[in-house]
Amino acid sequence: MNTYTPPLTEILERESLPAGGIVSGDVDYEADGVLYRGYTARPAGDGRHPGVLVVHDWLGVTDYVRMRCDMLARLGYSAFAADIYGADIRPAPEEAPAVAGGFYQDRARWRKRLGDAFERLLAEPSVDPSRTAAIGYCFGGSAVLELARTGAQVGAVVSFHGGLLTGPAGEAAQIAAKVLVLHGAADPVAPDDAMLAFVDDLRTSPAVDWELIVYAGAMHAFTLPDANDPDHGAQFHAVAERRSWTAMKNFLVETFG
Amino acid sequence: MNTYTPPLTEILERESLPAGGIVSGDVDYEADGVLYRGYTARPAGDGRHPGVLVVHDWLGVTDYVRMRCDMLARLGYSAFAADIYGADIRPAPEEAPAVAGGFYQDRARWRKRLGDAFERLLAEPSVDPSRTAAIGYCFGGSAVLELARTGAQVGAVVSFHGGLLTGPAGEAAQIAAKVLVLHGAADPVAPDDAMLAFVDDLRTSPAVDWELIVYAGAMHAFTLPDANDPDHGAQFHAVAERRSWTAMKNFLVETFG
Repeated sequence: MNTYTPPLTEILERESLPAGGIVSGDVDYEADGVLYRGYTARPAGDGRHPGVLVVHDWLGVTDYVRMRCDMLARLGYSAFAADIYGADIRPAPEEAPAVAGGFYQDRARWRKRLGDAFERLLAEPSVDPSRTAAIGYCFGGSAVLELARTGAQVGAVVSFHGGLLTGPAGEAAQIAAKVLVLHGAADPVAPDDAMLAFVDDLRTSPAVDWELIVYAGAMHAFTLPDANDPDHGAQFHAVAERRSWTAMKNFLVETFG
Repeated sequence: MNTYTPPLTEILERESLPAGGIVSGDVDYEADGVLYRGYTARPAGDGRHPGVLVVHDWLGVTDYVRMRCDMLARLGYSAFAADIYGADIRPAPEEAPAVAGGFYQDRARWRKRLGDAFERLLAEPSVDPSRTAAIGYCFGGSAVLELARTGAQVGAVVSFHGGLLTGPAGEAAQIAAKVLVLHGAADPVAPDDAMLAFVDDLRTSPAVDWELIVYAGAMHAFTLPDANDPDHGAQFHAVAERRSWTAMKNFLVETFG
């Protein structure tokens, strides 16, 4: 089962299209003079839905992120893919580490752009701003944890194979969101010592509700069908991909009812 | 939410009674001249169902374990509560550590009794012996991990706040079951170093499919409504109780289809 890599359409089709269908498309937005190109997907019609921010991996907004937004829309959520990089910046794989690294090195700028994207989600007419979550993949997994650390009033954050950063002592007390971390046991980006440091940091703030799931044999990027670089610790893992999506769904159901 | 402790009937009622109802009752069985008193619960009728062995905490077979069997029966499984102690042995809380400790000190005897109970499950006419799982609580959580380490042909094992024991080098390679460990981040029975040693032991056998879930703030015995001894690191935790049951259900669905 672990050796089969499905096409995106097959992953998408696991969630049934609702009777009314979904609507989706690119969304340009601007903040501080920078143009961003995100993506929205939501159930058709005029209703309001829980809003889910989706933060991309180090390649920026791609078909993968758009597919996850479509899946969330099929589940009844109004999904919005943040564009942290800016509309003009869609790095090739060999350029991506440097682009993402610029944000890891400037967390204030990173957090500002995350906050701008979250504000954009809240402004969507299809979003009930009192019911929100944020999910992200790799760079985006780290990002939603950063967003939570700003004290953003987001109901839940879910990191898929994100880096597990900490911050200044006491900062974790700002976290208002419920936190779900979906982590590969063979992810060299966050080995055991980083995982424990992350957990210990959260433990300093007992009011924070967090959950950590560790998947055997899963490397970095385990939900990305294109990830195929086991020598560098990144590879798709079919079992962990499915289980982590299910875990996220249950977490969102718990959050939104 | 975490401060409310539900009665067992309220936990039970979360799973709907199937239209046909369930049947349940004590089951006496014998092995090596010892009489045991287990408990069975299954959907009414003559059908065969996936079988789930349920291993008790250090108090032995109690209403708590019987309630979990009833919940599993409501979900469509044929549940069987193992009696590891023997029918005459139902220790008072102050006696329980010594009784359970006797098995921790004699793992061969422990494994033999687990194997006997598993055989008894397989012999149930209502059980499809090709589709089985084992779950357990505290002592029983440790126990189902022990059962897996014997190489028992059980499809999945789920430990709720079990001790995280390891064994001789290489023994983990015998594990045929998928393993789900539901663990409290504040469980002094298995602190971080024990958790990592457990994980590292499983990593030596890459073919073993395991998953570890860690719940913030959850102490030992976090699913037991009677657990109320935070000074000794044991206390019911409503959020972790619900989430862990949901995680188990998904794991069983994945296992049994």
